[in-house]
Amino acid sequence: MESKDFTRKDFLKKITTATMASFGLAMGNPASLFASSRSAEEYPVLRPKSTVLFQGDSITDYGRNRDALGPNNPQGLGPSYPFIASSYLLNMLPDRDLSFFNRGVSGNKVFQLANRWQSDTLDLNPDILSILVGVNDYWHTFTNGYDGTLETYEHDYRALLDRTQRELPGVTLVIGEPYALKGGKAINSNWDLSVFEGYKKAARSIAKDYGAAFVPYQSIYDEAIKKAPVSYWSPDGVHPSIAGCQLMAHGWLNTVKAMQA
Amino acid sequence: MESKDFTRKDFLKKITTATMASFGLAMGNPASLFASSRSAEEYPVLRPKSTVLFQGDSITDYGRNRDALGPNNPQGLGPSYPFIASSYLLNMLPDRDLSFFNRGVSGNKVFQLANRWQSDTLDLNPDILSILVGVNDYWHTFTNGYDGTLETYEHDYRALLDRTQRELPGVTLVIGEPYALKGGKAINSNWDLSVFEGYKKAARSIAKDYGAAFVPYQSIYDEAIKKAPVSYWSPDGVHPSIAGCQLMAHGWLNTVKAMQA
Repeated sequence: MESKDFTRKDFLKKITTATMASFGLAMGNPASLFASSRSAEEYPVLRPKSTVLFQGDSITDYGRNRDALGPNNPQGLGPSYPFIASSYLLNMLPDRDLSFFNRGVSGNKVFQLANRWQSDTLDLNPDILSILVGVNDYWHTFTNGYDGTLETYEHDYRALLDRTQRELPGVTLVIGEPYALKGGKAINSNWDLSVFEGYKKAARSIAKDYGAAFVPYQSIYDEAIKKAPVSYWSPDGVHPSIAGCQLMAHGWLNTVKAMQA
Repeated sequence: MESKDFTRKDFLKKITTATMASFGLAMGNPASLFASSRSAEEYPVLRPKSTVLFQGDSITDYGRNRDALGPNNPQGLGPSYPFIASSYLLNMLPDRDLSFFNRGVSGNKVFQLANRWQSDTLDLNPDILSILVGVNDYWHTFTNGYDGTLETYEHDYRALLDRTQRELPGVTLVIGEPYALKGGKAINSNWDLSVFEGYKKAARSIAKDYGAAFVPYQSIYDEAIKKAPVSYWSPDGVHPSIAGCQLMAHGWLNTVKAMQA
């Protein structure tokens, strides 16, 4: 593992990147991602021998084989956006010797990430840590009796990232926007999307404050829905279809591609 | 399902496409696949409401969930090249209403495809049928006591395609080149790669005779091995790594992209 220096300059670069991504770099059309030629300059944030870890809930887990814990394992990465993004980069950048892991767990809220953070994140010592969490922090308040609030979400998320940056100085963070698609079968009358909006804003604000790149999944889906119905991208409005998995991978790759080393 | 007219003109178009693909169109670099802009003209062979079926052995099966038989099912497509190609196209072409299925079964030789062809292929009435088979037809002669020869392979394959074109007039065929990578752990001294060469040539010859597009996987891997070792693309020399899955999907997509409607 390379040493990871984290300087003020790096931090400012990351802030700039996060801001750029927030303003739509991640929202290009599917072809744009692949338009430039491959070169040693592509994906500069993915330095040789980098370890990339995907963390989150069921959207990330997606039925992965939880016994397949090694790097770059197709079954272990699960058939969702982590697999698509990983396989794309492994094919594209064979000289980088990259390692990809998925440790998403269905149903997780932020406090549940924290409970398993040592073994499932810190021990893996990732160079790039991608987190997508938040939909359950809201959803489970009316399905599972969870009593956390928006403030809990934001407080727990910040505490998790404080711990992460303390334990893994120099880790590069990628934070995904929680999303919910009106018209999806799970988005029933219990949902108040204006309340859920707060969770999205919190994730964006946290990304900015922690120098993380931000993948604006809600905006990405909102654009996609102009081309095909919600049922095409995410039948229940929470979990992606196979097309939605690719859409998310594309958004993730576009964000990571724009990050500086 | 649309009616499928199959004219002499279509046939000649397909022959031309197959020939072009054979001469290396499928071998561009990873970025080239995605370089052109998305439009209604892209992937003309994938007409609206097309059904695409992936058939083959373990390389195609790849631990797919065999209970998930519906179209566009991430678990049912398995985490290999069919999933990557399908998710890419579903995201890229949301207005086409495409359906993708995987019915690869580990260990299959051509005669075993034939045994389950009615339920696993003909009943699905695919518009595009992609077949990758052949490595077991050779490999199992010295591991499983299989007594088929190269002649058996070619005879059975042609009989299978005769039956297919009789039952599904107008089906568009995509035939993958069987491959084996010297240096892979499974490619031991029992292998005579000059004999296996005959299986590759047979597949290419069959593709030409049946108007199928041809995906030159051996050549694709041979190019990739210039960039990273065999173990990176296919540890055992037969089954792809995750990078190999993406490599194969990329080759498949490049071939299909070049096909005429």
